[in-house]
Amino acid sequence: MKALVYHGAGRHSWQEVPDPAVQDPDDAIVRVDAVTICGTDLHILNGDVPDVVDGRVLGHEAVGTVQQVGSGVRSVHPGDRVLVSCISACGRCRYCRLASYGQCVGGGGWVLGHLVDGTQAHVVRTPFADTSLHILPDSVTDESALMLADILPTAYEVGVHNGHVTPGDVVVIVGAGPVGLAAVMTAQLFSPSQIIVIDPSDVRRAAATTLGATMVMHPRDQVHDEVLKETTGAGADVVIEAVGIPATFQMCTELVRPGGHVANVGVHGSPVQLHLESLWSRNVTITTGLVDTSSTPTLLRMVSTGQIDTTALVTHRFGLDEMLDAYDVFAGAADTGALKVALFRT
Amino acid sequence: MKALVYHGAGRHSWQEVPDPAVQDPDDAIVRVDAVTICGTDLHILNGDVPDVVDGRVLGHEAVGTVQQVGSGVRSVHPGDRVLVSCISACGRCRYCRLASYGQCVGGGGWVLGHLVDGTQAHVVRTPFADTSLHILPDSVTDESALMLADILPTAYEVGVHNGHVTPGDVVVIVGAGPVGLAAVMTAQLFSPSQIIVIDPSDVRRAAATTLGATMVMHPRDQVHDEVLKETTGAGADVVIEAVGIPATFQMCTELVRPGGHVANVGVHGSPVQLHLESLWSRNVTITTGLVDTSSTPTLLRMVSTGQIDTTALVTHRFGLDEMLDAYDVFAGAADTGALKVALFRT
Amino acid sequence: MKALVYHGAGRHSWQEVPDPAVQDPDDAIVRVDAVTICGTDLHILNGDVPDVVDGRVLGHEAVGTVQQVGSGVRSVHPGDRVLVSCISACGRCRYCRLASYGQCVGGGGWVLGHLVDGTQAHVVRTPFADTSLHILPDSVTDESALMLADILPTAYEVGVHNGHVTPGDVVVIVGAGPVGLAAVMTAQLFSPSQIIVIDPSDVRRAAATTLGATMVMHPRDQVHDEVLKETTGAGADVVIEAVGIPATFQMCTELVRPGGHVANVGVHGSPVQLHLESLWSRNVTITTGLVDTSSTPTLLRMVSTGQIDTTALVTHRFGLDEMLDAYDVFAGAADTGALKVALFRT
Amino acid sequence: MKALVYHGAGRHSWQEVPDPAVQDPDDAIVRVDAVTICGTDLHILNGDVPDVVDGRVLGHEAVGTVQQVGSGVRSVHPGDRVLVSCISACGRCRYCRLASYGQCVGGGGWVLGHLVDGTQAHVVRTPFADTSLHILPDSVTDESALMLADILPTAYEVGVHNGHVTPGDVVVIVGAGPVGLAAVMTAQLFSPSQIIVIDPSDVRRAAATTLGATMVMHPRDQVHDEVLKETTGAGADVVIEAVGIPATFQMCTELVRPGGHVANVGVHGSPVQLHLESLWSRNVTITTGLVDTSSTPTLLRMVSTGQIDTTALVTHRFGLDEMLDAYDVFAGAADTGALKVALFRT
Repeated sequence: MKALVYHGAGRHSWQEVPDPAVQDPDDAIVRVDAVTICGTDLHILNGDVPDVVDGRVLGHEAVGTVQQVGSGVRSVHPGDRVLVSCISACGRCRYCRLASYGQCVGGGGWVLGHLVDGTQAHVVRTPFADTSLHILPDSVTDESALMLADILPTAYEVGVHNGHVTPGDVVVIVGAGPVGLAAVMTAQLFSPSQIIVIDPSDVRRAAATTLGATMVMHPRDQVHDEVLKETTGAGADVVIEAVGIPATFQMCTELVRPGGHVANVGVHGSPVQLHLESLWSRNVTITTGLVDTSSTPTLLRMVSTGQIDTTALVTHRFGLDEMLDAYDVFAGAADTGALKVALFRT
Repeated sequence: MKALVYHGAGRHSWQEVPDPAVQDPDDAIVRVDAVTICGTDLHILNGDVPDVVDGRVLGHEAVGTVQQVGSGVRSVHPGDRVLVSCISACGRCRYCRLASYGQCVGGGGWVLGHLVDGTQAHVVRTPFADTSLHILPDSVTDESALMLADILPTAYEVGVHNGHVTPGDVVVIVGAGPVGLAAVMTAQLFSPSQIIVIDPSDVRRAAATTLGATMVMHPRDQVHDEVLKETTGAGADVVIEAVGIPATFQMCTELVRPGGHVANVGVHGSPVQLHLESLWSRNVTITTGLVDTSSTPTLLRMVSTGQIDTTALVTHRFGLDEMLDAYDVFAGAADTGALKVALFRT
Repeated sequence: MKALVYHGAGRHSWQEVPDPAVQDPDDAIVRVDAVTICGTDLHILNGDVPDVVDGRVLGHEAVGTVQQVGSGVRSVHPGDRVLVSCISACGRCRYCRLASYGQCVGGGGWVLGHLVDGTQAHVVRTPFADTSLHILPDSVTDESALMLADILPTAYEVGVHNGHVTPGDVVVIVGAGPVGLAAVMTAQLFSPSQIIVIDPSDVRRAAATTLGATMVMHPRDQVHDEVLKETTGAGADVVIEAVGIPATFQMCTELVRPGGHVANVGVHGSPVQLHLESLWSRNVTITTGLVDTSSTPTLLRMVSTGQIDTTALVTHRFGLDEMLDAYDVFAGAADTGALKVALFRT
Repeated sequence: MKALVYHGAGRHSWQEVPDPAVQDPDDAIVRVDAVTICGTDLHILNGDVPDVVDGRVLGHEAVGTVQQVGSGVRSVHPGDRVLVSCISACGRCRYCRLASYGQCVGGGGWVLGHLVDGTQAHVVRTPFADTSLHILPDSVTDESALMLADILPTAYEVGVHNGHVTPGDVVVIVGAGPVGLAAVMTAQLFSPSQIIVIDPSDVRRAAATTLGATMVMHPRDQVHDEVLKETTGAGADVVIEAVGIPATFQMCTELVRPGGHVANVGVHGSPVQLHLESLWSRNVTITTGLVDTSSTPTLLRMVSTGQIDTTALVTHRFGLDEMLDAYDVFAGAADTGALKVALFRT
């Protein structure tokens, strides 16, 4: 079969590799019907994730069809159409028992396309199939489901849930990339009064407005003054960081009201300054998190009922064998305007 | 009457000032029977709190006897023995309605000895008497009650509650000054399996052990290794910062397990580095807070029933007119071994 | 002035009574601009609420204009347009400090039109004005605000909040009177996947559909089978009782899934059977509650921003002096199709 | 091997049966080293649990040694000393993913000694071994661990957790059988100010006092008056029902304060009256529940550290082959004073 293989910083190819096979009784072998590319994949290509070794097949998001299962698998069967989630869960460890699958210490967590071969391939081996795959109803398209493999649960759990968005709140979302936009979508499930989005890209601010933002700003606007004006001087109830650099994180801590929440979703590569000399007395809660995908069944139901419509997130579509083109378009988002790209088996 | 008056950085005196009088219908005039000194008072004397003007009477903790009340006061009466809490609550604003009195925007919050004259005096005017004073049962001594004016609720709310201490947890407390020791005491209300205390002072580590710490360490010990050893490699469930400097804050974020809580109680004067490059994926919750004193009635009941015994916290006792001596002993804690000092009307 | 006066079971009149005056420093005198009638008022007229004495002015919901305030009132002033809430809060007692104003033991709780004269009058005295009145923004009409005096916060707090409605839930609401319909409206703030409403009245089921119910049923329909069908055999996540008789309460406990919530909002006059022989092992949570009106500021903001539109709840409008006619229409809802009636100063 | 076999209402025998064998890849075969008898076993013998068929081996609590595991078992191995918990968890279903194992719909829940053969035998087959067995540290004795198979987590989860016991609370526990006494022990983990226990048996009231009750009463005492006296007229914060009959449940709802919790732990055989005509307005929360055993790892750690000492709960000890004698002593608790009996492999 063909797969997208990492060969060290800056080098990757769409090449022939051996078909995966069942290794453990918990495994499933899944034919990939649809797959996407994550910002994290670009970080890997930059060499920023040293755990990823030369020869690794990348990708941690897919929709596919089960072809074979190990002897211990009970709840999925060959022929089932499934969501392959970015997080695998052993289902047995201390963290899995708390539904904190992203922190699994039993061999799961984020392993696909990271510590084991991933989904950007014709076929993928998925460990812990019973507790990591989600059977898809017919009413959910492959493309819609694909948005549930990572970005929807990430935005919902790490942004909206950790941020405790509540009816009537003023929510600020800093960053309108795919995850920031997914936060715009899922924050609305808790009926905030305002969703203010800050992003330098005209395209992304426009997408945020389409998806439900009530106000959009460029970071060079009078962001602080505007947020205070909208909150009678208090600051925002919830601020979600969806960029991952020191300047945006600091902006978040400046925009939050006393008693409010800063939910960090962004992937950071360097330390940030935390101004405890002003924050120590302000009853602020700051959270971080890797997605657990504990919300995936709920989000799946809401996509199925039409409460969540993910179609606006996919801007470019490809055949599976056009993987390298898809990477180029996604990596060049500043020029191409790409949000999420989707690749389909042809 | 006499009072401790601030005269700008480095200058204070115990001097004659006019007796306070009722100014607002919500006021009470309280004769001070017992009073203490807070680390914050030393910060004020250093000139670190610019809001405090020349001529201000300091002090925000006292036990006293009501002498007079304004026309709008309903629930306290002349002759009542009361706790004067560090936080005044207007009882009407958005924050007071959420029991977040420390963030009061209706004229309360931390005002005594800060924005209005305080308790280090023979008599004090207390605003918002109905919602800021606590009537004391006979079973609670002045000295025990004094510990409830600030340090007990601060440690309990900002440390133990914000940190979500839960039965069976491993709790680390960094700093064993009065508030850190109060955290040792009140953390036990939730039955953690271990309370590990880190402080450079032999005296304070010994006090921590007496009050219930299960392990004490000097910061130059192999703190990180020991905490990992005690937690089968995971890190502590809860870490409470009770110092207020960058090094101790960073230690806290290094000791916490994935999914754990860092509760900052320390008063910080400068920014800290937050290592989001490693913390972003670890599901960590970091909280800050000024005490709300919403727990004071509960803590008072527990002192009254003997569940909490505050006697070990007071190391030095003085007459009220020995105020300057008491300041010297408290400021020289490194030499005197002082934890809390208490001054009594004679 | 004129007022609706209760004269014992079955007797009431719209008659001349003395104008109210300030009695306590916390009082406000409010001219009534709009008022409504509650199902509870009908219970009083039936003699079901023995605390209500002959001569009492009824009514606990109004919008008005402050005419005069007592010496202790700080936050409302003559000329302010205010919401008079069904709950008065002393702001000082154990329950008020927890924002549980409905349980106030300091002289508040439900007192208007119950233990003191109420709002169905030209003018009303409101105790504890600072903590019981809500100043209205210009953007909210008298009629919209009137729905916030009781039914919206009751449905939201006692039904939706106590029931823990969560995105993706299946919610069943038994009873589509004014409070049941307000539950239909406010449940949507948490984005359930389904809201199933059960009521025998065609008019009310139609209103429920208009306001957002996804399915409506007559109680004689195969309610249990349908709910199981919609929930793959599990039962509803949340069931809200908004009637107040044994049969409907029992229906609620039969429709809830293991681990689900039954939130009782209905006012009951007799005991119910609770089938613990089947419920004991099902992890069910049953709640009761009188409204606290702690959510009123938030709901007011959402009415102001248009997130909540209460206009469909008022079916009949009258002049204030048409009080007896309004009572007749409201009491005859089965024939008149009345939901809420509104009376306005002319 | 020998086992305690049910032969229809009123008939049971300790008899030879075939040794169990691995049936599913998730199974473990465990040699029973210690076992106990539950009140539920007596209900089964009375014929009250019709799901239990003739020929079933009873028992759902044990400590043992793993002899063999199925091909899919990863985390326990032959030779491991394990706790066999009353609840089996498939680990895959909707409820297991929420740690609500007692409600498992994937083949687990309470199955041992109920729907499959149980632990009152020389050897037991345990399904879903990875997610249902708990490996025991050497520091915990067989007898101590045995109390963790059912009664400790039941009291802690269904009584103390569901009841939201909080520091300073007044807790009433109605019923001082083994589970009621386990509630006395585990309620103390949250430092209530008072634990008031009500039971007609002198022996059990004495045991309650030994285990930490602050007041004990006979049900014919002035229970209501006493509880009001201890709570300044309010009622108890938390009331735990640990009997399972209508009279005791009703007592619980009469003793709880407005805003308080009634946590039902008792197994009920008939409906109860719920006085909603007085409770509807009192903000009461009533919970039911089957144990999930989600707290077992935490409780095990606390037994291991000595925070919980279960030794007082076992009053009578037997050899495993003295099963019928043990049943007699346990069933005759009124005369024998038995709390828990323990049987050990000899």
